[in-house]
Amino acid sequence: MIEADEAIRLGLLSQAIGYQLRRAQLAVFEDFARRFAALDLSPAQFSALVAIRENPARRQSEIAAALGVQGPNFVALMDGLERRGLAERLRSGADRRANALQLTPAGATLLKRAEATQATQEAAIRDLIGETEHRRLVETLERLSQL
Amino acid sequence: MIEADEAIRLGLLSQAIGYQLRRAQLAVFEDFARRFAALDLSPAQFSALVAIRENPARRQSEIAAALGVQGPNFVALMDGLERRGLAERLRSGADRRANALQLTPAGATLLKRAEATQATQEAAIRDLIGETEHRRLVETLERLSQL
Repeated sequence: MIEADEAIRLGLLSQAIGYQLRRAQLAVFEDFARRFAALDLSPAQFSALVAIRENPARRQSEIAAALGVQGPNFVALMDGLERRGLAERLRSGADRRANALQLTPAGATLLKRAEATQATQEAAIRDLIGETEHRRLVETLERLSQL
Repeated sequence: MIEADEAIRLGLLSQAIGYQLRRAQLAVFEDFARRFAALDLSPAQFSALVAIRENPARRQSEIAAALGVQGPNFVALMDGLERRGLAERLRSGADRRANALQLTPAGATLLKRAEATQATQEAAIRDLIGETEHRRLVETLERLSQL
């Protein structure tokens, strides 16, 4: 807590995209964690469940690459989802990265609930910044991802 | 690497601010890491050096709060900067969070170089998204940080 009268000065940080991106991302992820606590899903797990459902029979390594997740991290993430009975690998040999992925019925059901929760967050963000700015922000962030 | 012909579908993630923020933030931080490798500074260390210089004699706990860094994490960060001789605590007693902070001459010199490096990143971002969008993005991210 800031107890002094005068605000702390951020200097050039206030106009630095890297700093502002990180602050906004942390705020949105903290809000996500509050909303998703009952479902026990992290942002990375939620993204993986969506991508698995949207891409039936695609290889684990392809999905990891599309999500920008390092191979070993995605293997660990899939191990967790498999242990919880939410997703499974269709074994294709010794290389676990080559396996195709699919949701279990339990995973599909949980994802439906998670999507409803995610929609409430997106609505809260639209309320905060407006519909036009929401669309514009998505486009700008996609371009920044190419930096 | 995606080897199949068809792109992986991201479904609702492509319009989700949380997902897009994280992808953009990682891209900007990876770019930062490449640019700052020679200076051996992380984004958090850079932010701390800026905030310490801009706020002479303010308490460590105030600066940590303004940067959105948890107390213990900021203490560890300051320990690292102090070990490298870049910043120091003006001891005010047993509670290290109550100490005022200042840059050493070496820290001030390194920060000057770091600011020049940071300016090259900001210029690259302006080239990518345009000056108007850069300004607008800063405003939108500041509002999102209030979520």
